[in-house]
Amino acid sequence: MIYLDNAATTYPKPKEVYDALDFAQRNLSFNAGRGTYKKSQECLQVLDDLRKEIASICRADYRDVALLSSATEALNIIINGIDWKDGMNVYVTPFEHNAIIRPLYNIKKTVNLNIHILPFDKETWEPELSKIENMFALDNPDVVFSSQISNVTGLLIDYSAVFELAKKHNSVTVLDAAQGYGIVELSTKNVDFIVFAGHKSLYGPFGVGGFINLNDSKLKIAKSGGTGSDTLNHDMPDFKHERYESGSPNVPAVYGTLEGIKWLKNNNVKEHEIKLTKYLIDSLESLEKVGVYAPVDKSKMFGIVSISVDGYSADEIGHILADEFDICIRTGYHCAPLIHEFINSTINGGTARISISGFSTKEDIDSLIDALSTF
Amino acid sequence: MIYLDNAATTYPKPKEVYDALDFAQRNLSFNAGRGTYKKSQECLQVLDDLRKEIASICRADYRDVALLSSATEALNIIINGIDWKDGMNVYVTPFEHNAIIRPLYNIKKTVNLNIHILPFDKETWEPELSKIENMFALDNPDVVFSSQISNVTGLLIDYSAVFELAKKHNSVTVLDAAQGYGIVELSTKNVDFIVFAGHKSLYGPFGVGGFINLNDSKLKIAKSGGTGSDTLNHDMPDFKHERYESGSPNVPAVYGTLEGIKWLKNNNVKEHEIKLTKYLIDSLESLEKVGVYAPVDKSKMFGIVSISVDGYSADEIGHILADEFDICIRTGYHCAPLIHEFINSTINGGTARISISGFSTKEDIDSLIDALSTF
Repeated sequence: MIYLDNAATTYPKPKEVYDALDFAQRNLSFNAGRGTYKKSQECLQVLDDLRKEIASICRADYRDVALLSSATEALNIIINGIDWKDGMNVYVTPFEHNAIIRPLYNIKKTVNLNIHILPFDKETWEPELSKIENMFALDNPDVVFSSQISNVTGLLIDYSAVFELAKKHNSVTVLDAAQGYGIVELSTKNVDFIVFAGHKSLYGPFGVGGFINLNDSKLKIAKSGGTGSDTLNHDMPDFKHERYESGSPNVPAVYGTLEGIKWLKNNNVKEHEIKLTKYLIDSLESLEKVGVYAPVDKSKMFGIVSISVDGYSADEIGHILADEFDICIRTGYHCAPLIHEFINSTINGGTARISISGFSTKEDIDSLIDALSTF
Repeated sequence: MIYLDNAATTYPKPKEVYDALDFAQRNLSFNAGRGTYKKSQECLQVLDDLRKEIASICRADYRDVALLSSATEALNIIINGIDWKDGMNVYVTPFEHNAIIRPLYNIKKTVNLNIHILPFDKETWEPELSKIENMFALDNPDVVFSSQISNVTGLLIDYSAVFELAKKHNSVTVLDAAQGYGIVELSTKNVDFIVFAGHKSLYGPFGVGGFINLNDSKLKIAKSGGTGSDTLNHDMPDFKHERYESGSPNVPAVYGTLEGIKWLKNNNVKEHEIKLTKYLIDSLESLEKVGVYAPVDKSKMFGIVSISVDGYSADEIGHILADEFDICIRTGYHCAPLIHEFINSTINGGTARISISGFSTKEDIDSLIDALSTF
């Protein structure tokens, strides 16, 4: 099996992650901090260890790292925690995921939000800053969302330029870094919240995601429950990450994610992916029937490449690659509802997406190219 | 180490669960149903397999089983999904957990709910049905919450009698079965929602919980995101469990939970716990300084026993047992804010809670009793 669906979840994980998970399931599967005994306190320490690692990646305060079950949960807690009022203006890039779009449209059922799509240039895929400046002046931004990396096209989105304009209007800014956190450096300037996913760029297992609340903003409570603390108080505790974390923490998954981050530190995954992404794009462009969804400057793409093949729908491409060549890619809309109009891929039922990881090889790409050349 | 904190999370899990988890992390950690390739479809099947097992326990339709990350998340999705209006009446037993109480009080910040505590007899710990009938007649119940088993006292709560009265007023009824699902049979008569926790009574790992929506009631959307389906629609899909599940499913944790349920089928954990609970209570009552928080009829307690020890706070008991005897229990309020007034344990800083599992032995109890006899 050749696995090229790493944007969905990285596979394989480093061996150390599997071993750590197995160890932790057998030895660290206790209710963190809820007991007076040693193992419970040890588990609490594991959670703080991950908070510190996550925080150090962007030089944040570890107490501002909320550990949750997924990036989707994190985005829901942020979006449902904002104090929305009728007439507020929300801006999203055309690259955003349904973990942002659906919660926003859900809010819109009861609050009259204006949801605007930020204009991006169709050639360069850069944000059209002067247009955005005018939009912001006309309809002052209250909250602005951007991904770090598009999960469909691999574009490194220039969120910094957009957030800089947004902050002139004191907008809240949310960066969805699910595809790159821990691999591609990011600027935290003008960013309020960063969302991460353990099972993607951090090479951990399913079960860990969260957000970094860089400016310790106070969200309304969107999820609450037992915290093992201040039990007689019907409110959640008010301190930093504790305000957003309820229920039994998934300690083994956290322990595994720590190993994923350790592995990332010892391997230059970024360089590997930059080289392999270039090799992938160059190879794809040698195929006559293949079209690559890309901006003019392809060095802005990282790890993910979406393609079309003349005469085939996206799903057909995926099925043929899977059934005849045992190559795993993902096809369709990739939970990103807005981008397909921008790249004009709805006509094909979305795109065929190839996504690599630190474990992908030139041989994987060559096999894919060989397979696609038979189309 | 003697582990008697199984109400927090069961430990150990069956060997088969650990082995299955290790296998699944290495071989089934894919994004279920999002890809056209075999492994993705295989993972989708694993999710349906668990839905079917969970449903068969209470003879429900498996498509009404929503698989989420925890019981806390499940309760938040139910509670935040109810269409609350000012003046609605909510009833909870005094045994309820903060995964119910805190979300309700959070709603009360914006909607004027009346949150009533159901009266229970201080001797028998039975619901005072004639009083409840009068309360319901005066303030018609809109939603009624009860646990199956109290996480503090082990009481098997007579929720059926309460829900029967509630249904005369067409109330919604929610059963929190986190402590007993899969072990202690339950009646689904007059029940709308059942909540379960994988890592407790189902002997699975952290990372799986959910609810069974017995009457396919339509909740408002409280959490949304990518579903790998109907991506261009800004709403969640409208079909049964799909409406409530978003984000990447935790397939390995689901796979492990399946093994936990298989193990439960081959072992009479219920009988074992009934006998051991009786042995525990009888042994505790032989100790002069120990008080057991219990109803007159102690056969109504299952698996969990809370105690006090003359001259010691709850926390002191836990620390001494942990530090001097390597015995793990839990002390304090156990995330259940209302029960301590009912059993008058606030004065001790809550209770010292002993909770057993299918793996607990008479020898574990004997060691605990020996330790407590030195107090």
